[in-house]
Amino acid sequence: MTSTSIKTVGVIGTGVIGASWTALFLAKGLRVIVTDPAPGAESKLHEYLKKNCWAIPNKITTPDKYLQNLTFVEDIDPYLGELDLIQENGPERLDFKRRLFAHLDAKTPEHVLIASSSSGLPSSEFVTDCERSPSRILIGHPFNPPHLIPLVEIVPHPKTGDEHVTAACEFYRSLGKDPIVVKRETSGFIANRLQAAVCAEAYSLISRGIVSAEDLYKTMTSGLGLRWAFSGPIMTNLLGGGGDFGHFMDHLGPAMKSWLDNMHQHQFDMDSTTEKENLKEKVNQLVSHVNIEKTEKDRDIFLTGLISARSEI
Amino acid sequence: MTSTSIKTVGVIGTGVIGASWTALFLAKGLRVIVTDPAPGAESKLHEYLKKNCWAIPNKITTPDKYLQNLTFVEDIDPYLGELDLIQENGPERLDFKRRLFAHLDAKTPEHVLIASSSSGLPSSEFVTDCERSPSRILIGHPFNPPHLIPLVEIVPHPKTGDEHVTAACEFYRSLGKDPIVVKRETSGFIANRLQAAVCAEAYSLISRGIVSAEDLYKTMTSGLGLRWAFSGPIMTNLLGGGGDFGHFMDHLGPAMKSWLDNMHQHQFDMDSTTEKENLKEKVNQLVSHVNIEKTEKDRDIFLTGLISARSEI
Repeated sequence: MTSTSIKTVGVIGTGVIGASWTALFLAKGLRVIVTDPAPGAESKLHEYLKKNCWAIPNKITTPDKYLQNLTFVEDIDPYLGELDLIQENGPERLDFKRRLFAHLDAKTPEHVLIASSSSGLPSSEFVTDCERSPSRILIGHPFNPPHLIPLVEIVPHPKTGDEHVTAACEFYRSLGKDPIVVKRETSGFIANRLQAAVCAEAYSLISRGIVSAEDLYKTMTSGLGLRWAFSGPIMTNLLGGGGDFGHFMDHLGPAMKSWLDNMHQHQFDMDSTTEKENLKEKVNQLVSHVNIEKTEKDRDIFLTGLISARSEI
Repeated sequence: MTSTSIKTVGVIGTGVIGASWTALFLAKGLRVIVTDPAPGAESKLHEYLKKNCWAIPNKITTPDKYLQNLTFVEDIDPYLGELDLIQENGPERLDFKRRLFAHLDAKTPEHVLIASSSSGLPSSEFVTDCERSPSRILIGHPFNPPHLIPLVEIVPHPKTGDEHVTAACEFYRSLGKDPIVVKRETSGFIANRLQAAVCAEAYSLISRGIVSAEDLYKTMTSGLGLRWAFSGPIMTNLLGGGGDFGHFMDHLGPAMKSWLDNMHQHQFDMDSTTEKENLKEKVNQLVSHVNIEKTEKDRDIFLTGLISARSEI
């Protein structure tokens, strides 16, 4: 049961992100009004729900029941007055989002929170034509697979009201998510920046032949990823430094600086077609035999167990 | 039971790393001859074993029994002829390691593998005075907590024999470890470079006030760390790109480049005392109330479960 007053949610766009939000909202007992103009969107959504709902942690309803709470509509405008929150998952195009948000802002009662799943565009860029109440607009950015990964990045724009940031945190938390607040808009927000840092160095090491794609995979799945899943980077520093972060910094800082300088010298050139082709070829040794559907299923089983283990600590 | 011919291991240095190797070797039924010149080293080692051995996955012996296989000696020289492998864990000082490895190489039968736990110094720098058989010397770098984290980085120097790299992989694998091979010496090897990439950006985001230390922690423990523990960075790209790495690169490459450029502009200055003090103050909000002993215990329980869940995939 949600601990907030949000009972009815509008979902705009039912690609993978929108479909997985829908699955989560339904599994937690919310009423969901959904729209997507793409041909076949409704049946694709039903397929998605059938395939993925089983994995949602702490469901409070059964598949038979929650489908009664789902309404797919061609035009959401007549329903905007019934909503407590909108989760927008449209294409990442500035002109599109500007028009959409101006429209939603004009037509939706002022108390309704409007969250965008945007992973790239900060909301300050697309609330520019909102004249009524842009302070209730913010980013609520989920992570693939969004029905399982607890992280949601909440990114207010400079004029988002603090009370709306708090309400969004409470809402996502009531669904079992673990929201964080990005205090100032910054390109890539938080997680995608950390991910880019790792990927850039991984691409460099693999394409330069220092390590195979398979061994790079093991470095994370048998090493760093396990530690970070438990303690994140700073607490991992702390545990490695005997409980004293200052000691860790003084002790390892100079070495870390020399590694970073070396990494910068050898950084992977994202603009170079040759480097990208070379990387793809080497990555293929790892991924060419992967059965994506089976891997996704394995992942969901693994994540479900891991998330439940974490909640017991 | 080990599948290699290595039955007796010499451990030099019993700080945390050496002690945890000792725990692992003993738990897997090996005979271990240990030396450390520090005052009180023997009793500290016994304390460590008592506290940590319970957590080692797939033990094949009991604490009572494996202590019979442990010999602590003041001088390991008379025992060098009995060893099948040496795991060295001395201080990370070049002069020290040069002298030690020259001595070990001269006094140890040629078939004996000599692995250093060095996390920083590449072995090419300290085999310079080895005149007998430097080709059996390499790095076998474990990760904290080394009795649990499966990853071991094997880093040969340019003259290490391939057969010794293979033998080291087999040996560590026989203990339940997941060794990777760093094909060319590179500063920081693999994992510490990836870790530095994440830490540098984490330090920057926290010290600039973009995100709190606690929310950065959640970004990893409720988000990226969970995914990476399952699929590492490249496979995570693949799963996010619908199974096509090329598509992912083409689609997200330009955004990633813009984030990396922005990160480089705002990079954390490891040499700046002001920045470091600012970071420490903000990190303290997360870590000042942490009970390290309890956190280590929680971590070991969590990792034990996680490693066993991974092995079932």
